[in-house]
Amino acid sequence: MKTIRDASLMQQDAEAARLRGSRLALVPTMGALHDGHVALLRAARERADLVILSVFVNPTQFGKGEDYERYPRDIDRDSAIARDAGADVLFVPSNEQMYEKGFQSFVTVEKLSAPFEGESRPGHFQGVATVVAKLLNITKPHLAVFGQKDAQQAVVVRRMIRDLNFDVELLIVPTVREADGLAMSSRNAYLSPRERGEAAVLSASLRKAEELIRSGERRVDAVVGAMRGMISLSSSGAIDYIAIADADSLARLEHLQTGQDILVALAVRFGKTRLIDNIQITT
Amino acid sequence: MKTIRDASLMQQDAEAARLRGSRLALVPTMGALHDGHVALLRAARERADLVILSVFVNPTQFGKGEDYERYPRDIDRDSAIARDAGADVLFVPSNEQMYEKGFQSFVTVEKLSAPFEGESRPGHFQGVATVVAKLLNITKPHLAVFGQKDAQQAVVVRRMIRDLNFDVELLIVPTVREADGLAMSSRNAYLSPRERGEAAVLSASLRKAEELIRSGERRVDAVVGAMRGMISLSSSGAIDYIAIADADSLARLEHLQTGQDILVALAVRFGKTRLIDNIQITT
Repeated sequence: MKTIRDASLMQQDAEAARLRGSRLALVPTMGALHDGHVALLRAARERADLVILSVFVNPTQFGKGEDYERYPRDIDRDSAIARDAGADVLFVPSNEQMYEKGFQSFVTVEKLSAPFEGESRPGHFQGVATVVAKLLNITKPHLAVFGQKDAQQAVVVRRMIRDLNFDVELLIVPTVREADGLAMSSRNAYLSPRERGEAAVLSASLRKAEELIRSGERRVDAVVGAMRGMISLSSSGAIDYIAIADADSLARLEHLQTGQDILVALAVRFGKTRLIDNIQITT
Repeated sequence: MKTIRDASLMQQDAEAARLRGSRLALVPTMGALHDGHVALLRAARERADLVILSVFVNPTQFGKGEDYERYPRDIDRDSAIARDAGADVLFVPSNEQMYEKGFQSFVTVEKLSAPFEGESRPGHFQGVATVVAKLLNITKPHLAVFGQKDAQQAVVVRRMIRDLNFDVELLIVPTVREADGLAMSSRNAYLSPRERGEAAVLSASLRKAEELIRSGERRVDAVVGAMRGMISLSSSGAIDYIAIADADSLARLEHLQTGQDILVALAVRFGKTRLIDNIQITT
């Protein structure tokens, strides 16, 4: 595995690989790799000749007062995990490489960035869309691999790729979970042992939602109410949002119909730690 | 010369040409081709194996009440000119191709879009940056060729290419002028014979500015005052702006120093027709 820190060198290498006829895959991450990232890398490995893992804690997608400074960073550990998972190139640019003096160009995906995470984290998806556009141009992949864990991010990136005509296929990989159901996240490391125990209620509440919907519940209020009750009863988590929306348009739903692709998504704070999770269901 | 109307086909062709080792150049235009565009095509022809001319009257870069509807369109004439000038591919997408249902992703170059044209035409450069990003992704050129006539556009596009890491070289071709100095523009066709005669004063005022600066004038007020006097005296044109700015940062200057790269730019309305022109000078 080769480590590249310079964006121009990365771009030259990617172009050379394309010209050799290789199929390139990008797995963009903020590092602090866990088994969820490994699943992305394995999915990329199965589908591409050259797997590029980018590790960049992107400052522009963090809001004020968020965890940019304390976000876990351990490039030696990440590098070892990436190598084991079959990455060919580890791209680790610096902030100065990515945001040169005078940087002022941003990509905005308007409507899809507004609800849910966008409400709680203004500017977040502009930061995401902009850095993904940059990474796509730098690494020139045929395939870009993201996780379903960040469901709204996947929808926003899909729209940007389509609207701006990026010549890349998008692959969304299912969320990887701990034994008790907690979605893997680099932010789980922030949780106290007690919070960690309680956090299992998030995925349990999503399974409860699925169960209710599968058994015929069509009132969104009733489903969300049941989830809210579960989380409040068995944890100290402060609910940021619980939402049921159309999986493509992210339009909030009030009453479900049969045969709809829906997203059930939530964000809950445990102390200073904000966790998100979701499931996608065809009703 | 091949005409392509479909963005996906254009992208496939461009990718195939790159994989064959060809060097691609894009000349993005809104059609109504004149000798200024021919100069862009010739510059591209000298530097590339495959010259792609795009003709697309981009609705998102026109403001309300501007000339989107009446902008001249004559694809048969454009096609003949493009062929004569050596274009290999004429890319003519429809609005529906470029802005599909649900389109909502935009590229914004913040500071450089604000002054001059940006003040008079809010949203103009967002429209330009977005469509150029799309065209770069669709046509995958090694080289993109623009005219110096749209000086601020060139600065905005240069910044976007750098900030978003587009792997493309930018070539800016000098403005082509009529015998009396009027900068070639598709909008010159709107002018009445009387306005057409008067419009020569724009380039004359720029030459006057250059003469003053070359002879040692360092006060921007004095230069702009002389230009304003000339234009008012000998035409019915309504001055939108006359500005002297740093050629890279577009920061407005009050006092010139020796060895500066400056832009002297103006926009003047003749009836409903808005003309722009500029010169770049090293003081």
